[in-house]
Amino acid sequence: MYPKTIQKLIDLFSKFPTVGPRTASRFVFYLLKLSNEEVEELLDSISNLKKTVKTCSFCFNHFESSASQLAGGKDERNLCSICQDVSRDKTLLCIIEKETDLISIEKIKKYKGLYFILGGTISTFKKADIKKLRINELENKIKNQPEIKEIILALNSTTEGQATVLYLERLLKPYNKKITRLGQGLPVGGELEYADEETLSSALEGRK
Amino acid sequence: MYPKTIQKLIDLFSKFPTVGPRTASRFVFYLLKLSNEEVEELLDSISNLKKTVKTCSFCFNHFESSASQLAGGKDERNLCSICQDVSRDKTLLCIIEKETDLISIEKIKKYKGLYFILGGTISTFKKADIKKLRINELENKIKNQPEIKEIILALNSTTEGQATVLYLERLLKPYNKKITRLGQGLPVGGELEYADEETLSSALEGRK
Amino acid sequence: MYPKTIQKLIDLFSKFPTVGPRTASRFVFYLLKLSNEEVEELLDSISNLKKTVKTCSFCFNHFESSASQLAGGKDERNLCSICQDVSRDKTLLCIIEKETDLISIEKIKKYKGLYFILGGTISTFKKADIKKLRINELENKIKNQPEIKEIILALNSTTEGQATVLYLERLLKPYNKKITRLGQGLPVGGELEYADEETLSSALEGRK
Amino acid sequence: MYPKTIQKLIDLFSKFPTVGPRTASRFVFYLLKLSNEEVEELLDSISNLKKTVKTCSFCFNHFESSASQLAGGKDERNLCSICQDVSRDKTLLCIIEKETDLISIEKIKKYKGLYFILGGTISTFKKADIKKLRINELENKIKNQPEIKEIILALNSTTEGQATVLYLERLLKPYNKKITRLGQGLPVGGELEYADEETLSSALEGRK
Repeated sequence: MYPKTIQKLIDLFSKFPTVGPRTASRFVFYLLKLSNEEVEELLDSISNLKKTVKTCSFCFNHFESSASQLAGGKDERNLCSICQDVSRDKTLLCIIEKETDLISIEKIKKYKGLYFILGGTISTFKKADIKKLRINELENKIKNQPEIKEIILALNSTTEGQATVLYLERLLKPYNKKITRLGQGLPVGGELEYADEETLSSALEGRK
Repeated sequence: MYPKTIQKLIDLFSKFPTVGPRTASRFVFYLLKLSNEEVEELLDSISNLKKTVKTCSFCFNHFESSASQLAGGKDERNLCSICQDVSRDKTLLCIIEKETDLISIEKIKKYKGLYFILGGTISTFKKADIKKLRINELENKIKNQPEIKEIILALNSTTEGQATVLYLERLLKPYNKKITRLGQGLPVGGELEYADEETLSSALEGRK
Repeated sequence: MYPKTIQKLIDLFSKFPTVGPRTASRFVFYLLKLSNEEVEELLDSISNLKKTVKTCSFCFNHFESSASQLAGGKDERNLCSICQDVSRDKTLLCIIEKETDLISIEKIKKYKGLYFILGGTISTFKKADIKKLRINELENKIKNQPEIKEIILALNSTTEGQATVLYLERLLKPYNKKITRLGQGLPVGGELEYADEETLSSALEGRK
Repeated sequence: MYPKTIQKLIDLFSKFPTVGPRTASRFVFYLLKLSNEEVEELLDSISNLKKTVKTCSFCFNHFESSASQLAGGKDERNLCSICQDVSRDKTLLCIIEKETDLISIEKIKKYKGLYFILGGTISTFKKADIKKLRINELENKIKNQPEIKEIILALNSTTEGQATVLYLERLLKPYNKKITRLGQGLPVGGELEYADEETLSSALEGRK
């Protein structure tokens, strides 16, 4: 229905997470209303993303290369600010699914340890599924950092999150570290009447 | 708009929890379609409610008087089956807001102690508010049952529930019992990305 | 889980339209909190429903028998106030699914004709389905009232409503009356972007 | 919380219609996962949008310049394919709010006339509001095309849409064309019980 160029961009936007064709076309008409300067600003910003954002080789968090790094500065290991921070507690490793989870935990300002971004979750234990996770990198990290004492599996309480927890518990057992899961219970605003049995059971068990 | 008798019943049904005029009129037309026998059955059932259901004098749970009790049998203290059950753990007292919460906890089959139904929650500490709770009855119960060692405040994680928890903690301090709250954390199905800071903080703290 | 009497009433309330077990139990606990007088008021109101509400023999609307009628007054044909109203336009007959639809149309104060409550809708043309509608009564009415010139099929625009319209159009064809359907189009608040093709097509066709 | 480059792009995406910070950050992490080729494809597509998409000088629809037009071909009036189509009915002019509404109407394949995209709607009749609409262009179009006989105001049935309809009816009166509005009524799937009075009134009036 739309001219070819417009349809092409609608198709590309439709691949964005949570975006369907209707929203994608809204994006395109929004861009058509922007001035050339505003469109340039967007193009530059997307372009810069690929040029200046690197992935931390320790935790796989994203970070921005400083000018010195771009110019081949001393630190070539590509470490993000958290992994470079010597005041962080190296005995704690918090495994999360994705970067937004790292942000969520950093926000509460209670966790002082280090992180590892798994890159996904699994719903089965098939090879195809497990490939989605950074398993090798995780095992290497644990081998290369004997100071780690506790591994916190901070994954969602969803079916996939919990399947991933089970898989990781099994995988990491040989390393003899203390392995913990996030506490389950009533969330803020939660009501007993609507809590499922497992949540309520955990809430009762975890009382203090 | 409706004939007087119909409108009267619509008005009465509209006072039922969660029922508005539209649903109330659906109820009335539903009743008009029932046979006389079915309506009689409903009338009898409502009538019986008032005649045979008593309130437990210990926990304020509802229970059904057995024939012997109705006929002035031995047990005149009006105790529900839970409070009469000698195998229950008398050292644990679980305070809940309403009967459906008692049912929710009983369902998980993990709690072996006794209960006390508070009858409501408060949002302020004003006298008018506090009158809604069975405070006197609660204090009497604790005085008359020295075997109580732990009081679990199993109230909702809502603002009112938590305000009520604060009030009860202050009120019950002099009694020198161990006072606990339900554990907070990620509920089943919960995701880190959408968890508020307090829930996530509790989940992290309560890890095991 | 609940005492027998309570559970019995929860089961009866669960049969009410839109009511599930959770809401039904809320109703029961609401009733347990009412005074004996308030419960009596409800019982009387439900009781009266069956005693004083009659069904109009012309349109099958519900109406309240006046004292004179109860005492065997002159009007024994059981006619509601609309069917008794000589100022109504006898040439118009509006067929609706249920009483609340009659109320909806009366509210807009634009329709001056008479009504007929079909009692349901069908989704197939099988005998079992058609039995749900007052077909015989409808055909008798049309035969006995030759002054009817237009029959308005005021049924919902749902699949069942429209299937019922198709069935009635076929059924009533032999009577040689003008048969009309409600106009379809954009509802108040409707947006072109979200309107389906049929609605938009009707809206365009029905422009004025 | 995020590195500067990431935060900048999150802020730009947050200005997209229906996009908030959470969704914007999902977009950024989605882009970070794409290959350089895929990002290039997106950048090119956005870039092309501005270069090849023109606005029709008759109806303000968007269309793609063909190669000949880009090279300064004969047709320099910038007309979209609909306005260039001689088989369209020039006596009909359909005024719509935005391009997606044109697409909605074209989809039903019933309308054979021409269009005019107003560019917005108003909620008041203040100058600041009216400036949002292409009023001058609309009036010029009507003056320059005397073959127009009917102007269809195909705007949403929302408050703003209808305010705009009122404004346009007043504005266009002097031109002595037939001015029509889209038919209102029950939408597909609509139920009498939930239809507001105005919709039901239109549905009754517009019966056929």
